[in-house]
Amino acid sequence: MTLLNEQTELDVARDAFRIALLDAGILIATSSPGIYGRSAVFERILSGLDAVLTDMAAPLNATTVRFPPVYPRADFERTDYIASFPDLSGVVSSFEAGDREHRELLSARERGERWDGWLTPADVVLTNAICHPLYATLEGVQPDRDGHGGGVWDVFGYGFRHEPSRDPMRMQSFRMHEFVYVGTPDGAQEYRDTWLDTAMATLTSLGLPITAVAANDPFFGRAGRMLVSAQLRENLKIELTVPMYVDAHGVELHEGTAIASANCQRDHLTAAFGIRTADGEVAHASCVAFGMERTVLALLRVHGLDVGAWPADVRKKLGLA
Amino acid sequence: MTLLNEQTELDVARDAFRIALLDAGILIATSSPGIYGRSAVFERILSGLDAVLTDMAAPLNATTVRFPPVYPRADFERTDYIASFPDLSGVVSSFEAGDREHRELLSARERGERWDGWLTPADVVLTNAICHPLYATLEGVQPDRDGHGGGVWDVFGYGFRHEPSRDPMRMQSFRMHEFVYVGTPDGAQEYRDTWLDTAMATLTSLGLPITAVAANDPFFGRAGRMLVSAQLRENLKIELTVPMYVDAHGVELHEGTAIASANCQRDHLTAAFGIRTADGEVAHASCVAFGMERTVLALLRVHGLDVGAWPADVRKKLGLA
Repeated sequence: MTLLNEQTELDVARDAFRIALLDAGILIATSSPGIYGRSAVFERILSGLDAVLTDMAAPLNATTVRFPPVYPRADFERTDYIASFPDLSGVVSSFEAGDREHRELLSARERGERWDGWLTPADVVLTNAICHPLYATLEGVQPDRDGHGGGVWDVFGYGFRHEPSRDPMRMQSFRMHEFVYVGTPDGAQEYRDTWLDTAMATLTSLGLPITAVAANDPFFGRAGRMLVSAQLRENLKIELTVPMYVDAHGVELHEGTAIASANCQRDHLTAAFGIRTADGEVAHASCVAFGMERTVLALLRVHGLDVGAWPADVRKKLGLA
Repeated sequence: MTLLNEQTELDVARDAFRIALLDAGILIATSSPGIYGRSAVFERILSGLDAVLTDMAAPLNATTVRFPPVYPRADFERTDYIASFPDLSGVVSSFEAGDREHRELLSARERGERWDGWLTPADVVLTNAICHPLYATLEGVQPDRDGHGGGVWDVFGYGFRHEPSRDPMRMQSFRMHEFVYVGTPDGAQEYRDTWLDTAMATLTSLGLPITAVAANDPFFGRAGRMLVSAQLRENLKIELTVPMYVDAHGVELHEGTAIASANCQRDHLTAAFGIRTADGEVAHASCVAFGMERTVLALLRVHGLDVGAWPADVRKKLGLA
């Protein structure tokens, strides 16, 4: 079988899953790929999943913060996101001129021309990962919250990735629930390793066939290739994947899709935002991050689109019983 | 007292409320005005309020749909938002070129120059009002869901308004819960009037001193002035307001801030999206919309920042007891 055929079979499987979700009314189509309305049943599963994750994380005694789907452009500029992931970014602009310019904009629009030239960059960008807004709020020396030189933050909200796709697992706008450790280098490594196991056990308890795999972020372009190999070599990112698409013989068409990840950020963002531990050293960060929409879709894939027919214990855990 | 002095006193009162919210850790500051992190206590009040609104709306038997904070630019183009509210819009762009252009972007950025010129309009814009994505999904003839020629949709999610402000009541990114009727012209008018009263009673039951006032949308520029007067003349928009800022003598510094509204859209959006009633006529729409952040802030203003000291019946209604 050639790679081309596999690609085609995979596309067919993705299309079939998306169409089944739309036909069942679980997702609602829009005119943009990767942008969907969510039905009541989808949201009930997602809320149940979120309650499971919140219970899982209770021993962390985390500080809860919720951020909106846009965050300050000034903070975005302190990260290297536009260098590493320009193609995934979402930059916001708006109209800040007067009546005359507005008439020009509307005339251009009426002629079917682009009217973006009349806009001005806004002071916000789309929140890429929901943990990014957190770092700017932690600038300065952090108190030792957990008695081991660090603390944990519980963040949840919408992330954005500019990657229109027909694969329902690859939405442009989606929710993430992250548990972020900020503290000592050893503490960050230990946190990642411990909570990777806990996250895997929690997702497995919902009947998901999870595999942990070494992974990398999708760094852009030629320069990005070196970042990929460094990330893999140092084992900084581990993804929890679920097989989503199989061929007619039950053979996986894909290495599985990530629904969660456990990551060592080291001092990547903490240094950029001047975050220090109680002893004045640059802090390290690590996190466990759950893709909420992806996990709901994995549950629907594994247990079927008829939620009433899901295994009783899974329904009970998710509060659907 | 001159208008200038009132303006200044109002600004002082707004600053004082914002600073008190930040000092109490209820909101978390960011580097952009109108963009905040929300604390656990803020989110608990908001969840409680949302449960109250969901209970209130139970008799509507509404169809629940949730939309993400961005929606298709193609659908945005079918509305007249960029004509009526260009200054409030949030238009998204991203990077879609290659390695060479990316190096040019990064060089410009390094020189401290604007790098937005290397971006391309994306296929999404920020969701302005959370009901806007709904209309495109209703294109065509609607079934009679309520036996009176119409149906109701329950939508909730993040809206965006580009209006940086130091007033905590004026956030750039905020959640709305809307109950939208689509059906016959008479049905739409009757729905608006009935649910205005219900919304007012529900908010009053939480101890909020609500006033209903005729209102208008903030249409842009010279051409917008006529739209404002038409909207007021025809009594299409009614806002539910709460006095937020008073001077040292307890005199209101402002006509009150809207926390909810009840609106007749007539065929404004239904015509643009080709939505028809069962008998083939262009449908009319009306809605009751709650600003979630604004209502939480009004509760904090009226009952105080110490949620533990709120009246027992309000705590109980909000599930905080």
